[in-house]
Amino acid sequence: MVKHALNAFFNPKSIAVIGASSQLMKWGFLILHNLVRGGYRGKLYPINRKEKEIFGIKAYPDVKSVGRQLDLVVVIVPAHAVPQVLRECAEVGVKYAIIIAGGFSETGVSGRNLQEEMVDVAKSSGIRLVGPNTMGMYSSTSNLTILMPPIPLRPGNIGFLSESGNLGTTMMQSGIVNGLGFSRYVSVGNQADMKIYEFLEYLADDKATEAILIYGEGLGKGREFLDVAKWVTRKKPVVVYKSGRSEAGAKAAASHVGAMVGSDRLYDSAFRQIGVVRAERSVEMVDMISVLSRQPLPKGNKIGILTYGGGWGVIASDFCGIYGLEVPPLSSELVKEMDKFMPPHWSKGNPIDTVGTLDGTIFRRAVEVVLESDDIDGLMVLGVGGFSFFIHYYRTFSLLTNRQLSEMKVALCDSETQIAKDLVELINKYNKPIIVTSMADVAMSDAARVLEDNGITNIPSPERGAKAMASLVDYSEYLRDLGKRKRKGKK
Amino acid sequence: MVKHALNAFFNPKSIAVIGASSQLMKWGFLILHNLVRGGYRGKLYPINRKEKEIFGIKAYPDVKSVGRQLDLVVVIVPAHAVPQVLRECAEVGVKYAIIIAGGFSETGVSGRNLQEEMVDVAKSSGIRLVGPNTMGMYSSTSNLTILMPPIPLRPGNIGFLSESGNLGTTMMQSGIVNGLGFSRYVSVGNQADMKIYEFLEYLADDKATEAILIYGEGLGKGREFLDVAKWVTRKKPVVVYKSGRSEAGAKAAASHVGAMVGSDRLYDSAFRQIGVVRAERSVEMVDMISVLSRQPLPKGNKIGILTYGGGWGVIASDFCGIYGLEVPPLSSELVKEMDKFMPPHWSKGNPIDTVGTLDGTIFRRAVEVVLESDDIDGLMVLGVGGFSFFIHYYRTFSLLTNRQLSEMKVALCDSETQIAKDLVELINKYNKPIIVTSMADVAMSDAARVLEDNGITNIPSPERGAKAMASLVDYSEYLRDLGKRKRKGKK
Repeated sequence: MVKHALNAFFNPKSIAVIGASSQLMKWGFLILHNLVRGGYRGKLYPINRKEKEIFGIKAYPDVKSVGRQLDLVVVIVPAHAVPQVLRECAEVGVKYAIIIAGGFSETGVSGRNLQEEMVDVAKSSGIRLVGPNTMGMYSSTSNLTILMPPIPLRPGNIGFLSESGNLGTTMMQSGIVNGLGFSRYVSVGNQADMKIYEFLEYLADDKATEAILIYGEGLGKGREFLDVAKWVTRKKPVVVYKSGRSEAGAKAAASHVGAMVGSDRLYDSAFRQIGVVRAERSVEMVDMISVLSRQPLPKGNKIGILTYGGGWGVIASDFCGIYGLEVPPLSSELVKEMDKFMPPHWSKGNPIDTVGTLDGTIFRRAVEVVLESDDIDGLMVLGVGGFSFFIHYYRTFSLLTNRQLSEMKVALCDSETQIAKDLVELINKYNKPIIVTSMADVAMSDAARVLEDNGITNIPSPERGAKAMASLVDYSEYLRDLGKRKRKGKK
Repeated sequence: MVKHALNAFFNPKSIAVIGASSQLMKWGFLILHNLVRGGYRGKLYPINRKEKEIFGIKAYPDVKSVGRQLDLVVVIVPAHAVPQVLRECAEVGVKYAIIIAGGFSETGVSGRNLQEEMVDVAKSSGIRLVGPNTMGMYSSTSNLTILMPPIPLRPGNIGFLSESGNLGTTMMQSGIVNGLGFSRYVSVGNQADMKIYEFLEYLADDKATEAILIYGEGLGKGREFLDVAKWVTRKKPVVVYKSGRSEAGAKAAASHVGAMVGSDRLYDSAFRQIGVVRAERSVEMVDMISVLSRQPLPKGNKIGILTYGGGWGVIASDFCGIYGLEVPPLSSELVKEMDKFMPPHWSKGNPIDTVGTLDGTIFRRAVEVVLESDDIDGLMVLGVGGFSFFIHYYRTFSLLTNRQLSEMKVALCDSETQIAKDLVELINKYNKPIIVTSMADVAMSDAARVLEDNGITNIPSPERGAKAMASLVDYSEYLRDLGKRKRKGKK
């Protein structure tokens, strides 16, 4: 039932924006702008007592004068005016209302009372509320962008729920820059009525969503969330970044969402038990959802590390170890095989150090041999994409002739771009995950662009790369264990 | 004595590049190119048996035919040829030799023997060796850039020693992009002769160096390093990123530097005892050295957090707590004072949440009031610089008129740039550290540019910002405790 109902929320046929404005910089201006510019194609009704039209769309003085049923209203009026607005909405049969304003339970006693009054109005009239204190939502299937910050949203397979609107939109922006696309996004706000677990439940069966990302503080107080997440992870990976690990953080979270947050240690072990993958830093949210939404799952935890230079290989190994991954030695057969084409002084071990070779064919052969081997379940490739900087530098600051520059570009960048193409091919051929880590700037590097366009995220450090690989391994192990338990249960 | 001797290494009057080449892409080409382009103004002698001149500089067939004493030679020949080259160097009175080639102790028995032979030649002739298996060095005071990778080096106050050449140059590049400058850099390689602690000793009294950054794996086996570091930290901050924390990492490090690495736990407690600040990820190297080389030290661990939105403030608090910093509540006087100018529904606590206000004057007053207060030793400011993205977006993808765009730019970016200028002013006025964290792209954001140009690093996440703040607090506490112990000792 909940799922069905939320279909209308994520694909409304008609929307009223109460508090829409033609005054630049007002939230009512920015949200309506993004809604229109985002390409929403249902019926759109700006509500404003004074304006006749906004962005060329006819405006109405109130919801009643629209004269039709509204699937969704976006309420952009100050907190104190919300209950009255909702009463008006009740009269015309509104299904969902997104309450943008802050100034409710997160601000103290009078705010809490106001929130209760608002919820009472909604409950008695059958309106479901999102928020208050929310920064909106996005839904790819109807080009629905109800957001204040400007985000050039790209449709994709990630569903994202956030207990902070500010963080949510920043992370979406970061994800999009890194080649990710989103199916749904909800900034759940104070969850006065609709709770984060209700949206999670919807995403579980949502065809547009293949992986789920969550930023949590109180997680709507928790118990229901864990109950729902437990069965969602059987269908789709769920990545959670939950703050409140330290006392200072828990206090801040409590004051932010206007509610106490549960013990972090309990959450941590619960997440592990039910297959939720936990990010430990905000950037890891993007790294993990990027690999979990696009890469094959590894069959085990044995990781190969391919590197141009020793230090980065050491760090990658170090963090593989820290995150519970194995960096197994290469079998003597594999070493013998690789001796045939690797440069002299290569490491003859794992990490596989090509000691700075610039020959792309060596790199490709190394990747292929390693992926073919049963000894390795997944591969980290360090440094691909960085050579673009060489050319950039030599173009602007060098003694090289044009001819030399172009020769260098062939030797470095073109070869590197070929490696990127090879990686895309090999990931499909062997169905094992490959994580590339380098500081390459996608705007500057063709190789990084090839990787990004083909679903291989370039993670900017080996520490984060190892953590992303660990998220694949952990989720894969969870599913395998689950399979075993199920089979046992059937006996 | 060591120090005096190293002056000639960091400021050589004459350099021969043995293996210099006019063949594009050879190391002998790239290193000589960077040396010339970097602006080294001493005497430079390319050594090549066949070439008459490279980059317009007269080349010599061997060091002997140069006919003068050489302070420094850069040896870019294959490993097996190094001992003979050194014998020739010995005849003409070379002081220092940088041995670029790998293929020595890191590759097995025959490599170890070759390394011993090389060291014997050097010792018997009084040549001090850097390397082998090094990627070179940099010295700001003589525009000396002996590096293969292209790095647009900026002179500055940071001395940097690295046990990985690849990592060293990447991190320098990252530092430079983030506004940092370097005084010295040495990729110490296998440390067959000169050890990392000898360079550290030099940096301690080097006037060009005000803060020291180190990437370590074995740290030249450790004991001497800790002995030297102990008195260096009394003069200058020392940031160390040491890998080998996990077994996999320790193994990889051992094979990379050709030596066993010591127990990580012992290092960790030793670092703490002697005031070395430890980075836990590669990116933190840049964050920490950036604040320790440019920001005032805080008098205590009480941190104020100023944020546009709740979630980021929660995360910043969380990580302040995790790293041992206090996020104290605001005194009722301070809250009363701030109530006068803050927007309604501001958090009335720490984190200080301006609930998305776009009024820059409010932000400035908040910063000033907080810095004035004795309750706060340092300030984290979250999100400054991000509004540039708004304008970028609306310029390329919006329904706004030019006039509206320009109005928006004034309201958002100009106000934000003013905040950045205010922060620069206030950091000097109150002599308390301010760490700004946002995902703003310096290339795109005027505010971020103002901060960078004035020594306030923009750290891209609150987690890293908190860690950088903790490095300031930890070092400051170490110095204070040291002062107390000294005073007690004198009684």
